[in-house]
Amino acid sequence: MTLYQNLANRLREHIQHGFFKPGEKLPSVRQLAQEHGVSISTVQEAYRQLEQDFLVEARPKSGYFVCFRKKDNLPSISRPPQRPLEVSQWEEVLNMLMIRSNNKGVQLQHAMPDMAAPTLKPLLKTLADLSKQKPELGLGYADIRGIEELRTQLCRLTVASGCQLHPDDLVVTSGCQEALSVCLRAVTEPGDIIAIESPSFYGSMQAIKAANLKAMEIPTHPETGISLEALELALDQWPIKAIFVTPTCNNPMGYTMPEDKKEQLYRLAQSYDIAIIEDDIYGDISYQFPRPKTIKSFDTDGRVLLCSSFSKTIAPGMRVGWIAPGRYRDKVTHIKYVSSSMCPVLPQLAIAKFIRLGGYTKHIRQMRQRYEKQRDHLLNAIKTYLPNDTKVSYPDGSFILWVELNPCIDSMALVERCREEGVGFAPGPLFSATGKYRNCFRLNFSEQSMEKREWAIKTLATILLSFEQP
Amino acid sequence: MTLYQNLANRLREHIQHGFFKPGEKLPSVRQLAQEHGVSISTVQEAYRQLEQDFLVEARPKSGYFVCFRKKDNLPSISRPPQRPLEVSQWEEVLNMLMIRSNNKGVQLQHAMPDMAAPTLKPLLKTLADLSKQKPELGLGYADIRGIEELRTQLCRLTVASGCQLHPDDLVVTSGCQEALSVCLRAVTEPGDIIAIESPSFYGSMQAIKAANLKAMEIPTHPETGISLEALELALDQWPIKAIFVTPTCNNPMGYTMPEDKKEQLYRLAQSYDIAIIEDDIYGDISYQFPRPKTIKSFDTDGRVLLCSSFSKTIAPGMRVGWIAPGRYRDKVTHIKYVSSSMCPVLPQLAIAKFIRLGGYTKHIRQMRQRYEKQRDHLLNAIKTYLPNDTKVSYPDGSFILWVELNPCIDSMALVERCREEGVGFAPGPLFSATGKYRNCFRLNFSEQSMEKREWAIKTLATILLSFEQP
Ligand SMILES: Cc1ncc(COP(=O)(O)O)c(C=O)c1O
Ligand SMILES: Cc1ncc(COP(=O)(O)O)c(C=O)c1O
Repeated sequence: MTLYQNLANRLREHIQHGFFKPGEKLPSVRQLAQEHGVSISTVQEAYRQLEQDFLVEARPKSGYFVCFRKKDNLPSISRPPQRPLEVSQWEEVLNMLMIRSNNKGVQLQHAMPDMAAPTLKPLLKTLADLSKQKPELGLGYADIRGIEELRTQLCRLTVASGCQLHPDDLVVTSGCQEALSVCLRAVTEPGDIIAIESPSFYGSMQAIKAANLKAMEIPTHPETGISLEALELALDQWPIKAIFVTPTCNNPMGYTMPEDKKEQLYRLAQSYDIAIIEDDIYGDISYQFPRPKTIKSFDTDGRVLLCSSFSKTIAPGMRVGWIAPGRYRDKVTHIKYVSSSMCPVLPQLAIAKFIRLGGYTKHIRQMRQRYEKQRDHLLNAIKTYLPNDTKVSYPDGSFILWVELNPCIDSMALVERCREEGVGFAPGPLFSATGKYRNCFRLNFSEQSMEKREWAIKTLATILLSFEQP
Repeated sequence: MTLYQNLANRLREHIQHGFFKPGEKLPSVRQLAQEHGVSISTVQEAYRQLEQDFLVEARPKSGYFVCFRKKDNLPSISRPPQRPLEVSQWEEVLNMLMIRSNNKGVQLQHAMPDMAAPTLKPLLKTLADLSKQKPELGLGYADIRGIEELRTQLCRLTVASGCQLHPDDLVVTSGCQEALSVCLRAVTEPGDIIAIESPSFYGSMQAIKAANLKAMEIPTHPETGISLEALELALDQWPIKAIFVTPTCNNPMGYTMPEDKKEQLYRLAQSYDIAIIEDDIYGDISYQFPRPKTIKSFDTDGRVLLCSSFSKTIAPGMRVGWIAPGRYRDKVTHIKYVSSSMCPVLPQLAIAKFIRLGGYTKHIRQMRQRYEKQRDHLLNAIKTYLPNDTKVSYPDGSFILWVELNPCIDSMALVERCREEGVGFAPGPLFSATGKYRNCFRLNFSEQSMEKREWAIKTLATILLSFEQP
């Protein structure tokens, strides 16, 4: 390691351990050079490195400052209505889904990963080769549980999240959306109540609606997830049939529920004897290494149905998802079969090979690092350009975050205005059963270009200004 | 046209118009030669031609006979229980789905088309090219209704079945199975009753089960389909929410409901103000040209939800299906979205191009002709080898038929024994809500090899013999 890298690492640790606080001025270049017995240019190089990582920022004529980060200005814990409700908001969701990304502008509304990464190349090559050399593999009917080769590789992968699964414990699906829908239908009867984080991914909300269920939204903390106290109260009061959570790199907030809280949630489900549907779609792009454990990893009696897909780690167009359905396997297999019969074989084969040869692990390692930097850049841009009273979540994985504006701002109106200017985001009401979170929205930061992202935030800021002047 | 072809065509017409009846002895070679003033070898050549088409058969030392065909030995009209029932039989269906085709033996249980046809090559080439040259097209999220290019081509195609559709009237699905499930959920509430043909495709039956519906099986005629009289009685007696039919090249029986009966069925649905779900998955491989009209073609008020896919005409592994949902479009779009979000893009693009450039029409023309010959061959083999009291449907499209054995035969036991010998078929109870049709089974005749098919029927016959000796 070079001198400047060494110095940069020490400064990074100091910042991460809070010896220097967000917004605090850092020692001057001269001072550090003397302190560490290195040259001025070495210190400058170290600071440049930290700037690139969005840990520090240079302010003209004043020196270096610690960037604003975690825990300043987090949104407060959510306060959804305390009773089971029918889900609405489909029209709003559909409107957003139908927006085509035109080339102009910056569309940050879809939870799309960055798919230009060179680490995806081996996978694409396998797909092209299979398509050319063995097209017949893609023609016939195949195992309705998914091809065994993929299920075997999935078992290997999930070891990282603390699971010990057998290929027969898995069912492959058309993306995580099908996984969620199938699981919901497998553990409920029409009319049942599902407890869910609030805000929650609109696809899960709409699946609850389509399965004729009611959503009991539970207050959710932007750093630690669903409130167990509020959940327990709800469980006492209502005949809740299952808990539906995205506890690792949550969509839309990005938090990861601490491991002990995950275990407590599992115990709670045990004591009320209900199922947990765990959506882990972003789990593999947590910035932590090793990645956080799933609730499923604590599951001793098969009550957790773990759902995931490669839509966020590879590409949504692959449509390869899966379920580890625990004791609900037979019901899940039935509903998966009637839902869409078997899944296309070639993407399954290609992904199985990508995992087997190590390409997947390499790819997600790179994506994790890139997304973490892009998160810091976006947080900085928000801090710099959006109004002071803006609150923002602090994702520790994924590529999306949640912004809470002044309560007088209506994000449904804002999204319309922004669309005209070529900036897209997902308005808050889509993430609630009943259209709450009107002053909130979700932003995607998988976009590589800092210029584009910064332009989008600046544009948003300008439009917001005109909103605030009544 | 050569002399012998000319003669063969005249004989063919005579047989088709019934001047010579099934089983009847045909004029001797010498007699025909004299009558038509042609040589003995010309007549022999003509007979050879008709033999190849399974219209006539040579019996050693007795001359040529008309093959047994249509209407002799059709199964009788079905008599399902006359009340709405829960669907069972999932374990039996799963057992069959899980059987892997091993190389030995002849597996006639799956409704798989012949996928070795050279007319599929252009499609496979497009798929390989897209995968190689434009992999990025397969990565992102896309229109949840399916790509517009495909929907446009589907509108063109459905003109042949009497429909006038706009691309906005269509929703692409993951195969016809998803189409059926989505439509069922779109037109019913849990607990509702669905009227359905009996026997019926097990995938539809199981979708009824999974949607928490009850099946009201209606007596069905093996040549003209669902009994409208029985249906009307049922509609008077029970609050039936929708009618679910596969009226063109029905699975499992292969009949096509006559056009006027299709229209009457539509009027009946109108007068009871209920929806019709029409499964047209085999419609394009009807042996008639132009192909039969759909019920949808009579639909003036949007109550027909037409479902189909390319699983029988191209290959099931493509997983490209679609719905023309009429007035239920919004609900269908919602349920399709929650069910599996959007469909993979590359197969859609490849099929759109295949249709646009005429490859699809050419392909199905060839398949139609081939399947018709293979049907005749299978009917002959059944007539020749299976017991005299065997009844068999007479498909006028598709590549499956329905066999009814002596009532004392249990096809569930038979299927087990046959499996040991390497012959597979789909036992009757799978096609009923409650396990009826125990003495029936469905056979696939898409297999090209006459030897294999004949071997399978002979093997079946031998096993049956041992069954009949108690
Ligand atoms: C939390 C969550 N679950 C499920 C899905 C659906 O994923 P897929 O595209 O694999 O169906 C998404 C996609 O946005 C998501 O964010
Ligand atoms: C009548 C009928 N409908 C639907 C299906 C399901 O088709 P797909 O494979 O396109 O889902 C089948 C397949 O066997 C069928 O025979």
